[in-house]
Amino acid sequence: MTMPLSALEKKINCLFNNKELLNEAMTHRSYRFESQVETKDNQRLEFLGDAVIELIVSRYLFDRYSNAPEGDMTKYRAALVQESALFDCARHIDLGHFLLLGKSELTSKGNERPSNLSDAYEALIAAIYIDQGYEKAQVFHIQNLEALWNEPADLVLVQNPKGILQEITQKNHGSTPKYATISKSGPEHEPKYKVDCYLNRELLAHGEGKTLKSAQENAATHAINRLKEDKNK
Amino acid sequence: MTMPLSALEKKINCLFNNKELLNEAMTHRSYRFESQVETKDNQRLEFLGDAVIELIVSRYLFDRYSNAPEGDMTKYRAALVQESALFDCARHIDLGHFLLLGKSELTSKGNERPSNLSDAYEALIAAIYIDQGYEKAQVFHIQNLEALWNEPADLVLVQNPKGILQEITQKNHGSTPKYATISKSGPEHEPKYKVDCYLNRELLAHGEGKTLKSAQENAATHAINRLKEDKNK
Repeated sequence: MTMPLSALEKKINCLFNNKELLNEAMTHRSYRFESQVETKDNQRLEFLGDAVIELIVSRYLFDRYSNAPEGDMTKYRAALVQESALFDCARHIDLGHFLLLGKSELTSKGNERPSNLSDAYEALIAAIYIDQGYEKAQVFHIQNLEALWNEPADLVLVQNPKGILQEITQKNHGSTPKYATISKSGPEHEPKYKVDCYLNRELLAHGEGKTLKSAQENAATHAINRLKEDKNK
Repeated sequence: MTMPLSALEKKINCLFNNKELLNEAMTHRSYRFESQVETKDNQRLEFLGDAVIELIVSRYLFDRYSNAPEGDMTKYRAALVQESALFDCARHIDLGHFLLLGKSELTSKGNERPSNLSDAYEALIAAIYIDQGYEKAQVFHIQNLEALWNEPADLVLVQNPKGILQEITQKNHGSTPKYATISKSGPEHEPKYKVDCYLNRELLAHGEGKTLKSAQENAATHAINRLKEDKNK
């Protein structure tokens, strides 16, 4: 059941002057299509919210990583504004409970779908920006970011550990890591891969996973952590 | 010769509290590489300025085209934030005169290069945003936009007339336009193409150009204008 918008206002600690705007932000197009009265969906607000979030995140990274080169910041920004990150933000404030969806969208669990939730989160940010000003939208989004990720740079690591490991080893060791598949075990429908990660023939780390890719990524993550530890010794 | 930054402040009617920031915005990386003293280039500011411009333009379009669907606004935004549009903005305020470039970049006319100028414009917008606040950056950029383009929607038209014409005819006539090459004349190094544009076997417009593509685009632009006129009759 969809919860009243007053509960959302309470949840996000933000009382709207224009309640229509909040309603628009929570209205999925499937709801608009089925509605008897003329109503707006959240697509235009989503368009605006996308740009609001881009600036909030850019300024946050600019201030936080005051010596990082532009290339690194671009990577962090891409990680923080992508659908999966905004989906995490939306879940963090239980946004799915407040989404207005059409019947079929509702029965197919549309209120848990990443695209619906990340779009609604963008629309919500735009609604706060229009109704309450940029500062308020900024404070709200950064609160959510910081509740979810201590260190945005780590988010990049989580997403592409093999790429990050390769960058580190090329820069610091002039060499790229190699992955050796040690074993594949378990039943056909639930295999388990074991992988070793080497640098210059030295074993760096071991990794496991349900796919070869995830086992390699797991090994790469361990390898990065080991190289960091070695550096700090 | 590079002009002093005080002249730029006068030109853009904006006195910086932190002159270093303006200096950073105008410093191309080629200048930093050659500099004897440690200096910052404009790449980090460019990263931030990109997002500032994205929001300024998004809000501008959101307010100006209050009934346009999200898809149209996304097209207008893409046209207004692309390199060539920012290059036009940079030229509009003669930004090339103020760019600090390395020697080889300077001799190869780097102060006229679209990428250098559009990057510097983004960096300048970020510098104004940090030093003077978001509102001031917004007013400044929109002044430049409006001086260059009366109607942002027309900018999309200029860039992709064939695509726009196809959309219009599919929507209003259920049919797509056809292009017939009438003639190719002139010497080999300077050919001239003539093209007719038809809709449902009816001649819509005529176009000319130095390439077949430009002749077709020219015909498409005329065709769009004619369909608009017919609609307004």
